[in-house]
Amino acid sequence: MKILVINSGSSSIKYQCFDMATPTVLATGLVERIGEPAGRLIHRPAGGPAVQRDGVIPTHRDGLAQVVELLLDGNHGVIESPDEITAVGHRVVHGGERFSAPTVIDDDVRQTIRDLSPLAPLHNPPNLVGIEVATELFPDAVQVAVFDTAFHQTMPPEAYRYAIPTALYDEHKIRAYGFHGTSHQYVSDVAARHLGKPATDTNLITIHLGNGCSITAVRGGQSVDTSMGFSPLPGLIMGTRSGDIDPAVVFFLSEQLGMSVSQIDRVLNKQSGLLGLAGANDLRDIQRRHEEGDEAATLALTMYTYRIKKYIGAYFAALGRVDALVFTAGVGQNSALVRQMACDGLEALGVRLDDAKNAAAAGDISEIQAVDSPVCVLVIATNEELEIARQTVSVIRS
Amino acid sequence: MKILVINSGSSSIKYQCFDMATPTVLATGLVERIGEPAGRLIHRPAGGPAVQRDGVIPTHRDGLAQVVELLLDGNHGVIESPDEITAVGHRVVHGGERFSAPTVIDDDVRQTIRDLSPLAPLHNPPNLVGIEVATELFPDAVQVAVFDTAFHQTMPPEAYRYAIPTALYDEHKIRAYGFHGTSHQYVSDVAARHLGKPATDTNLITIHLGNGCSITAVRGGQSVDTSMGFSPLPGLIMGTRSGDIDPAVVFFLSEQLGMSVSQIDRVLNKQSGLLGLAGANDLRDIQRRHEEGDEAATLALTMYTYRIKKYIGAYFAALGRVDALVFTAGVGQNSALVRQMACDGLEALGVRLDDAKNAAAAGDISEIQAVDSPVCVLVIATNEELEIARQTVSVIRS
Repeated sequence: MKILVINSGSSSIKYQCFDMATPTVLATGLVERIGEPAGRLIHRPAGGPAVQRDGVIPTHRDGLAQVVELLLDGNHGVIESPDEITAVGHRVVHGGERFSAPTVIDDDVRQTIRDLSPLAPLHNPPNLVGIEVATELFPDAVQVAVFDTAFHQTMPPEAYRYAIPTALYDEHKIRAYGFHGTSHQYVSDVAARHLGKPATDTNLITIHLGNGCSITAVRGGQSVDTSMGFSPLPGLIMGTRSGDIDPAVVFFLSEQLGMSVSQIDRVLNKQSGLLGLAGANDLRDIQRRHEEGDEAATLALTMYTYRIKKYIGAYFAALGRVDALVFTAGVGQNSALVRQMACDGLEALGVRLDDAKNAAAAGDISEIQAVDSPVCVLVIATNEELEIARQTVSVIRS
Repeated sequence: MKILVINSGSSSIKYQCFDMATPTVLATGLVERIGEPAGRLIHRPAGGPAVQRDGVIPTHRDGLAQVVELLLDGNHGVIESPDEITAVGHRVVHGGERFSAPTVIDDDVRQTIRDLSPLAPLHNPPNLVGIEVATELFPDAVQVAVFDTAFHQTMPPEAYRYAIPTALYDEHKIRAYGFHGTSHQYVSDVAARHLGKPATDTNLITIHLGNGCSITAVRGGQSVDTSMGFSPLPGLIMGTRSGDIDPAVVFFLSEQLGMSVSQIDRVLNKQSGLLGLAGANDLRDIQRRHEEGDEAATLALTMYTYRIKKYIGAYFAALGRVDALVFTAGVGQNSALVRQMACDGLEALGVRLDDAKNAAAAGDISEIQAVDSPVCVLVIATNEELEIARQTVSVIRS
C-alpha cells in the first residue's frame, strides 16, 4: 500500500511517498515559495539523484501537479499511476476539540477544519488548500486528516483550561490544545516498545526541540499535559518564539510603547526566543558562539535549558512516576550540550546522564542515562511523516 | 523603639504601630475609601476596643492625620507625641533593579520610585503619596522604603529574563521582578530558624497563597526564581488573576473578539482566576461549594492546586535539593485541603503529608509532613508588617 503524506503550508508543500509494506520512503520533496517570483521544487526519489526545478509556481495546485508529474516521471518517478496512491495523509494543525484521532475527510470534516480556522489562522487555511488540491489530483485516494492537536485531546481539564471567565471557554473554546502531537505520539510509542512495557503502563516526558519546541507529560501512553497552549507560542523558548511570558508584557508594550497588538504578536512569535536574545534562531549557531565565549549566546542557551529543566520538574510532579525522558527533533537529537544542561541537577528526580553515552547518541534510538539512573533518558529520532502515514493506514483499515 | 508601618494604596492606608523592644503590636488600623462618598477608618489599639469612624476622607493626608490623632488619643492612643515614632516603614511595591534592600528615603529615592511608576502604575504612585504624607506628619521620623520586589533581586538572569528582543530589557527593563518578597523573605527566615540550619545552607520552596498567590524557590536564603513576573499577573491561579496563560489569548481576544487592550488587562487581572472559573474569588467559598458537589468549584480547586503542584516540581528541579516546602498567607495557612491536593502525588520528590498534622496546623508554625517524609512541610503564619518594621530598624541602625 502506497501512502502520500502532505504538509501544506501558506507558500509551501512538503511531501513524502511511502510504501507501507516495509515501510519504505519512496520519495520526499518540497515545493516552496508558491505564488512568489522565484518558486522552487526539490524532489528526492529514494536511491536516485535529487531533481530541482526553479521557476514561478503560481498556486498550490500548480505545485502539487508538478509533484505528481515527478512521482510519475520515467526517470525520477516512484509510481506509474496516481491510483497507486491508496490514501493521502494530510497534516492538519488544528483539530480543536472535535478531532482526537485521524479522520477520513468528507465535506463535513472539511467544513469543521474551516470552522476551526480562527484558532489557527496561519495553518488551517493552507492545510485545507492542500486537501482540496490532493482530492483533485488523486481522485481515487482516500484523503485522511492527521491533526497536530489530536494526541493532546486526552489532557484533563486542569491541564487544558485557563483560569479565565468560563464563558471564554464555553463560547470561544479558549483553552490549551497543544501541538506537535504527532511527534510526541510517535516517540512515546517508540519509547514504550524500547522499554519493553505496554504503552498503557508507561509514563514519559517527551521533549521535542526543533525550531518549535514543546514538552509533554505522557501517562499510560496518553498526553496529560503539554507546554504549548491555545497557540504554539507558550512554554519552552524556541527559535523565534518567546515561550512563557507574563501577558502583562503585552499590555506594557501596547500602553507604554504604543505598539499595536499585531506588532506585539509578530515580536513574540517571530523576533523573540533565541533570535531575540542572541540574534540567531539556530541552536547550532548559539552553541558555537557559546563555546567561543559569546555572552549573549551563553545567556540564551542557559535560559533555553533552564526552561526545559523546570518543565521536566513540573511534569515529574504531575506524573508522580516517570519511566523515561525522551529527547527528540533537531536540537533534541543532536545537541548533547542541551541535553546535559537540561538534565544537570536533576539527580534528586532520579535523572543521571552518562556523559560518554550522551555525547555518542545517534541513530534511531539511544539510551544516555548512567547505569545507576532510576529514570531512563532516551534520544529518539522523530518521524512525523511516518506517523502520519501509519495513522492514515490505520484509519482506512478501521 | 517605635516603628509605624504604612501600606498606602490608591484609596486606602493600612498601618501597624510596633514597639520593637519585644516586639509588640501597639495598634493596627485601616483607612479606606479615601476620596469616596463614604470613607471609613478603623483603629485597633492592642488590648482595647476598636474605634470606627465613618465619614468623608477627602485625601490620603486627611486619612493619615486622623490616624495620627487616634494614635495620640487619650483613650485609644498608644503614643504621646509623633516624635516617639523613630521611623516609618513604607511598603513600596516596585523597586525595579535599583533597590535590592530596604532604603532610607531621600529626594533621590523618591524620584527613583516615581521613575519606576510605569512598571507599577497602580501601586508606586499611591505608595509615594503615603511617603509624602508621612514625611509631613512625622517630620522627625526616618522614612524607610521596603520593596516588594527587593527579595527577588538575587534571581539569576535565566530566571528573570524573558526570551524577547534584548533591547526590550536594555531599554525598558522588561524582565521578571517578582512580588510578595517581604512575605517570602519572612517565612524563609522563620523556616531556616525552625529547621536549625543557617539560612545560607537552606533550600526552600515558599508558597504564598492569599488573594494574590506566588511561589518562590529559595536557595541558601536567597530567592532564585519566583512565579510572579514583570507584573503580579503570571504564575499561580489567584482570586481574580489568571496566573499563567498563553499570551496569544490576548491576541485572540483583541483580533477576533475586538476587545481593547485595557479591557483584556481588566479581564485577566480582575475577572479571572477563581472568580472567572467559579464566580467567587474567596477560596473558602470555593472549598465549601466543592464539598457540596459544585462542579465549577471542583474544577477551580483542582486547577488551583494542580498549578501549585507543577510549580513545586519546577522549583524542585531548579533547586536540586529542597529542605522544606512552606505554605503561608490566608489560604496557605488555613486550607488543609489545598495543601493536601497540592502535595498529592509528590512522594517521588520526597514529600509526604501527615493527614492529621495537616488538618491540625495552626499558630505561628506547624510541621505537617509524615515522619518518613524526606522533605519537611511547614505551615508558617506570615507577617509582612513585622518584617517591614524589622527591616526598617535594621536599615536605620546600619
